[in-house]
Amino acid sequence: MDCCVIPLRHGGLSLVQTTDFFYPLVDDPYMMGKIACANVLSDLYSMGITECDNMLMLLSVSQKMNEKDREKVMPLVIQGFRDAAEEGGTSVTGGQTVINPWIIVGGVASVVCKPNDFIMPDGAVPGDVLVLTKPLGTQVAVNAHQWLDQPERWNKIKLVVTKEDVKEAYQEAMFSMASLNRTAAGLMHKFQAHAATDVTGFGLLGHANNLAQQQQSEVSFVIHNLPIIAKMAAVSKACGNLFNLIQGTSAETSGGLLVCLPREQAAKFCSEMKSHSSGPGGPGVAGGAWIIGIVEKGDRRARIIDKPRIIEVAVLCESGAEVFLTVFGEVDDVNVSYVDECIMQKTSKQTNKQTSSVFGTRLCPAQLRGRLEQLPSEPLGGARSV
Amino acid sequence: MDCCVIPLRHGGLSLVQTTDFFYPLVDDPYMMGKIACANVLSDLYSMGITECDNMLMLLSVSQKMNEKDREKVMPLVIQGFRDAAEEGGTSVTGGQTVINPWIIVGGVASVVCKPNDFIMPDGAVPGDVLVLTKPLGTQVAVNAHQWLDQPERWNKIKLVVTKEDVKEAYQEAMFSMASLNRTAAGLMHKFQAHAATDVTGFGLLGHANNLAQQQQSEVSFVIHNLPIIAKMAAVSKACGNLFNLIQGTSAETSGGLLVCLPREQAAKFCSEMKSHSSGPGGPGVAGGAWIIGIVEKGDRRARIIDKPRIIEVAVLCESGAEVFLTVFGEVDDVNVSYVDECIMQKTSKQTNKQTSSVFGTRLCPAQLRGRLEQLPSEPLGGARSV
Repeated sequence: MDCCVIPLRHGGLSLVQTTDFFYPLVDDPYMMGKIACANVLSDLYSMGITECDNMLMLLSVSQKMNEKDREKVMPLVIQGFRDAAEEGGTSVTGGQTVINPWIIVGGVASVVCKPNDFIMPDGAVPGDVLVLTKPLGTQVAVNAHQWLDQPERWNKIKLVVTKEDVKEAYQEAMFSMASLNRTAAGLMHKFQAHAATDVTGFGLLGHANNLAQQQQSEVSFVIHNLPIIAKMAAVSKACGNLFNLIQGTSAETSGGLLVCLPREQAAKFCSEMKSHSSGPGGPGVAGGAWIIGIVEKGDRRARIIDKPRIIEVAVLCESGAEVFLTVFGEVDDVNVSYVDECIMQKTSKQTNKQTSSVFGTRLCPAQLRGRLEQLPSEPLGGARSV
Repeated sequence: MDCCVIPLRHGGLSLVQTTDFFYPLVDDPYMMGKIACANVLSDLYSMGITECDNMLMLLSVSQKMNEKDREKVMPLVIQGFRDAAEEGGTSVTGGQTVINPWIIVGGVASVVCKPNDFIMPDGAVPGDVLVLTKPLGTQVAVNAHQWLDQPERWNKIKLVVTKEDVKEAYQEAMFSMASLNRTAAGLMHKFQAHAATDVTGFGLLGHANNLAQQQQSEVSFVIHNLPIIAKMAAVSKACGNLFNLIQGTSAETSGGLLVCLPREQAAKFCSEMKSHSSGPGGPGVAGGAWIIGIVEKGDRRARIIDKPRIIEVAVLCESGAEVFLTVFGEVDDVNVSYVDECIMQKTSKQTNKQTSSVFGTRLCPAQLRGRLEQLPSEPLGGARSV
C-alpha cells in the first residue's frame, strides 16, 4: 500500500499517512515545490482519499547556496508546495528545514478518515479494466532536457528528436508531475474502483506488480497500451537500455494513478477525467486517462505484452514552448552548481555555466497566468530573474 | 508551539503532529536511532500528550557508505528508532529512505487527541515555578568527546577536565538524549502544569523566551539554577564564547521539558520524576527534574540571573565509563569518514583513522543489558563489531 492506515481509538476512524521526499529534478523552484507536494498527496489519492487534514513540509537548503540564491529560490519552492497543498484543499502547518549538501523537498500528508473515505487496494477481479491517469516518460523527458547541453549525450538521441521536441516534452513532464491526482481519487468512488496505486519510482510495471500481489483474488494484470509523453518512446529506444521505458520499469515522479475499474465503468471514468481538464497546466495532461490493459485470472503478477501500442501524448497547450523560448529563454546569472548536483544526484563541474537558466522560471501561458495571479505584486521581470 | 494542532471534522478531535530530522551526533548507531525518535516524540510530550498513534521514519543512507557498513549500521539505527517508539507505546509503520551525502535520521509523530489530552502551552501565571527535566550540556559533551582526538582542541580544555570526565559526560549526554520525556508528559496532567516546551536547538534561554512570548498572561521567566552535565560548565567556560552554555543558548538535542507548574506542585512533580528512574540508562538522568526558576509579572521574556547556581549532574550509573573502556574500547576497522562528516557536519579527512570506534557500540551496563535482551540472538562480539 502507498499509505499506512492506523485504526484509531476514536469511533471507527483511521489515521492515513504518507511521507515522501526527494531531490530537485526540474530547474524551476516553484514547479519543484508543486511536484513535491503533488507527489506526497498522490499516495492518499491512490486510496481514493480526496481530503487531506494536514501537510508538513520537509526541506533542506543546499550548503553550497549563497544567501542571495537561497532568498530567491527557497521561498519559491515553499510557495509552490503551499499552492499545491491549497489546490488539494489542505495547508502546510509545520515541518522541518535543515542545511544539507543537496536540496531536499518533501512532505508528510495526513488525514483522519471514516471507513468509506478510502478504498483498500485489494479488490480487483477478472474482467476489470486497467486505467492510467498520466502519461509515462517523465524520467526520460527530464534527462533528455539535461542532455541539451551535453553534446556526447545529445548526439545519441538527436536522430529521433529535435531540441524543440525535448523542450516540449520537458514542459509536459513538469506540468504532469505537478498535477494532483485528486480528480482521479474522487472518480474512483463514483465509478466503483476496485483498487489503485500511483506510479512512481518503480515504473508502471513495478507498481502494477506490487498492486497485483496485494489482490485478494487470484488475478494478473496484462498491459496492452503505453501512453507516453510525445517522442519519449523514441528517445528511450535510442538510448539502448538506459531507461527501459517500453519495458515498464523507467522511474516516474508524481505519476498517474493505475486504477482497476469494472469493465462497464472504465470508459466513463476516462471520459469524465478528460472533462476535468482545468488543471494548472491548462487543458493538458491533468485531464488525461487511458485504458491500458485488463485484469485476468492469474498468479498475481503484471506483464506488458510484446509490442504494446504506444500512445503518443502530445502537448496540448501548444504555444507553451514557443512562448517560453521568447520570454524566458535568456541567460541567467545564478550560480548553478548546487542545483545541477541535486538534479542529477551527482557532482557537477558546471559551476560557471552561463548558458541556461537553472531554477529559472520556465512557464507556459496557463501556468504563467496562475503564477502572476498568485504573486500579484511581483512584476514579470521579478519572476524571470530567479 | 512544538506541534501543529489541527481540529478535525470528527467530533471535537484534533490531529497533533510534529516532524524532526537531523544528522548523527553520537557514534553509536543504535543510540542515534533512539535519540532521533526521542527527539521527535518530545514535541508531543511537551504538550502533555503521552500517546502517539503513529510514527513514520525519515532516513538517508550516506552515499559514501560501502555495502558492508550499511548493512551493519543502518539496521541498528532503525532498531534504536523502533525500540524508542515502542517505549513510547507506538510503532513505526512507514517512512522514506533516500541516498544522501550525509546520514539523516528523523521521523514524524502523529496522534489524534481529545481536547483534554493536551495542555496548550499558554497558561503560565505569576507565582508559577519553572522545572527542567533533563540537564543541559549535551552539545558541549558531544563536542568535547570529539576533541579527545584533536590535540589543538583538547589542549584548550584539558586544564579543567580529564578524558574520563569527558567520556562520562558523553555517556550521560547520550542516555539523556535517548530518554523519552513521556513520564514528564504524564506528570504534567497530574500536577496541573500550565505550559511547557522542550529544550532543543535554541538552548534553554531560546526556548524559554519562545514559551514566555506565547503566554496569555503578562509574565516573565527568571531562571536561577542551571542543572548541567558534570564538568561541562567548566568546559564551556574554557572554550570562551563557543557554546554560551551558562548564557543559556547552547543548543541541546532531545533535551528535557521546561514546565511551568503551580508553586505548590513543583516539588511533588520533581519528586515523582525522580522516583520514575527506570529509564533505559538506569537510575540516571531519565528520572531527573530540577526547579530552575520562577514566573513573575513581566513583558513575556525570559532571562537568566547573573551568576546562576550551577547544579553539577553526575553520572549515576557510575561504573559505566569504566566498563565501556574495558569491554568496548578496542580499535575497529569500520571506515569512518562518512560518519565523522555527519557528526560534525563538515568534511573530514580521517578516512583511515583507526584509533576509535565510530558508530561503535559504547554501552554502560544498564544499556547493555537492555540491548542484549532486545537482541537475544546476537552475541556480545556481534554487538561490538559494528
